[in-house]
Amino acid sequence: MKLKEIGEFGFIDRFASKFKPLIKPGDIGIGDDCAIISVNPHENQVVTTDLLVEDIHFLKQKIEPEHLGHKALAVNLSDIAAMGATPQASFLSIAMPQDTDIAWLDSFMQGYHSLSQQYQVPLMGGDTTKSQQHLAINVVVTGLLDKTKARLRCMAQTGDIVCVTGTIGDSAAGLQVLLDNLAQTALTKRLVAAHHLPQPQIKQGQWLAEQSSVHAMMDISDGIASDLQHILDASKKSAKVELNQLPISNDLVAAARTYGWNRYRLAAGGGEDYQLLITVRSDAMKQLNTGFIEVFNSPLYPIGTIHPGPGKITWQKKGHKIKNLIEGFNHFK
Amino acid sequence: MKLKEIGEFGFIDRFASKFKPLIKPGDIGIGDDCAIISVNPHENQVVTTDLLVEDIHFLKQKIEPEHLGHKALAVNLSDIAAMGATPQASFLSIAMPQDTDIAWLDSFMQGYHSLSQQYQVPLMGGDTTKSQQHLAINVVVTGLLDKTKARLRCMAQTGDIVCVTGTIGDSAAGLQVLLDNLAQTALTKRLVAAHHLPQPQIKQGQWLAEQSSVHAMMDISDGIASDLQHILDASKKSAKVELNQLPISNDLVAAARTYGWNRYRLAAGGGEDYQLLITVRSDAMKQLNTGFIEVFNSPLYPIGTIHPGPGKITWQKKGHKIKNLIEGFNHFK
Repeated sequence: MKLKEIGEFGFIDRFASKFKPLIKPGDIGIGDDCAIISVNPHENQVVTTDLLVEDIHFLKQKIEPEHLGHKALAVNLSDIAAMGATPQASFLSIAMPQDTDIAWLDSFMQGYHSLSQQYQVPLMGGDTTKSQQHLAINVVVTGLLDKTKARLRCMAQTGDIVCVTGTIGDSAAGLQVLLDNLAQTALTKRLVAAHHLPQPQIKQGQWLAEQSSVHAMMDISDGIASDLQHILDASKKSAKVELNQLPISNDLVAAARTYGWNRYRLAAGGGEDYQLLITVRSDAMKQLNTGFIEVFNSPLYPIGTIHPGPGKITWQKKGHKIKNLIEGFNHFK
Repeated sequence: MKLKEIGEFGFIDRFASKFKPLIKPGDIGIGDDCAIISVNPHENQVVTTDLLVEDIHFLKQKIEPEHLGHKALAVNLSDIAAMGATPQASFLSIAMPQDTDIAWLDSFMQGYHSLSQQYQVPLMGGDTTKSQQHLAINVVVTGLLDKTKARLRCMAQTGDIVCVTGTIGDSAAGLQVLLDNLAQTALTKRLVAAHHLPQPQIKQGQWLAEQSSVHAMMDISDGIASDLQHILDASKKSAKVELNQLPISNDLVAAARTYGWNRYRLAAGGGEDYQLLITVRSDAMKQLNTGFIEVFNSPLYPIGTIHPGPGKITWQKKGHKIKNLIEGFNHFK
């Protein structure tokens, strides 16, 4: 049997349970955005890691090294944001060919450092080694979280409103621009920038974790089709999502029209927007949104509702069920 | 300028200082075996990470997957041992081709799990993704350490005796067996096992960190030629090492004779034995060794002495200076 037959999650399922007996009571291991480890009476440490591989996650010729440095850290900070935690330290491992240009590496580190400085998170260690051909970049970020504030994937409740913190689909459109080798225009450049320079929603995650009406929270890395399903599986719930309510940018509307793309498919199935996906107690939705707008000058976008019983996402358009919307991203299928 | 011109440490030097202002007072970042982060009034957390790349660090056809799973974790546990810390959690990222056999992966995880169980360190997270061709395996291990017990590379003092906790060179000989495609004999199999199944000196590290006479401590991953030099650089000292005092196993003596290898070069220049390298206050050496033997049923091996002023290692044989002994391993040179 080959890996591609069972996929990433099928592989993880084969060993995850064996490690459970080693985990301390109260700590949380494989399965959420971050692991959670108690480190003192008041705080938990959260830990996340992401591995980026050349020609799988990025094309070296198509991304500025400074942007790659930014993105390698940003995708991990986004997991910290999804827990509502404060980033604490990062660790960077790079495998790279011996003939890699130092100027390229300096620029990569410049992007990494600039985002580190923005969120005051020091790079505190790592490993550098050579590779035969491809770059591989592994980043770990740790964070600290008040013990009372963890927001997990399993916390969605029946009746909750599903919200996202910003527009989705631009990153997937930017990837499509790169894959299709589309001409550089102001529009395609903005979409590629959305793909290469995601902004981790650290402050938003911290603020949302303070609000008792926010139940489940995660970041949108693989697309809501996949990520919301993780919340449903962990919470043993189902959901309805209204495609017309997905927050889609004017850029994505324009690009979808110009290039013949299905904007709903990009918004629902495309990943790497790194907005936050939350479920909110319905009677508190209005007040939460008012508070969010006051702080961030931008609204929460309700896109659907949580329903009882384990199940799949029902996609709707003006209340009518839509079949065969793209499934979420699975690295091996 | 290319990476190979400045090497791993040259690259790290270009950015390490930029992150220093972000590190909290008292914490320690890039440069020791582990980063050190204060997590509560009594304990520090130590964090280490190692990236293993196929065809650079291992040949997939030459190592049992179970051994590779063991080794990927063991090399990180060894860094935890070098701090005298107690391992807390591990995080595993793997990039692998889609056609990787599940049976191979199961066996890899079996080796990883078995060592995890031995030291009661849970795998708590990670990332799995595909790669084009080569496996890349990144492991992070965190540990906890009483604040009073950190043993750093910078702590060597003039007059200290340099010791190692066990025989060195067998792992390098095992690697040579693989590279030279030597016939499998009982002897060559034991040397290859030393290369593939290193035992992290966790208990030894914890015990040594309890002893006030132990000053600097690190693990021997790149070979003492390189690793002792790190202690000297960090402590601004120099050292003399007596080659005849290097603890060399009967297996290495026999193999060196059979295959025409220089056993001193393998013992001093070869890495991956993962014994501990310590410097000890000279007047306490005898007492320390007695205590070590009582607990571990095996002695400490004195191999040299620390001298004032920054400098290189002087290699001696029966008191006579030896020139041109192999230099330590540098991943890009």
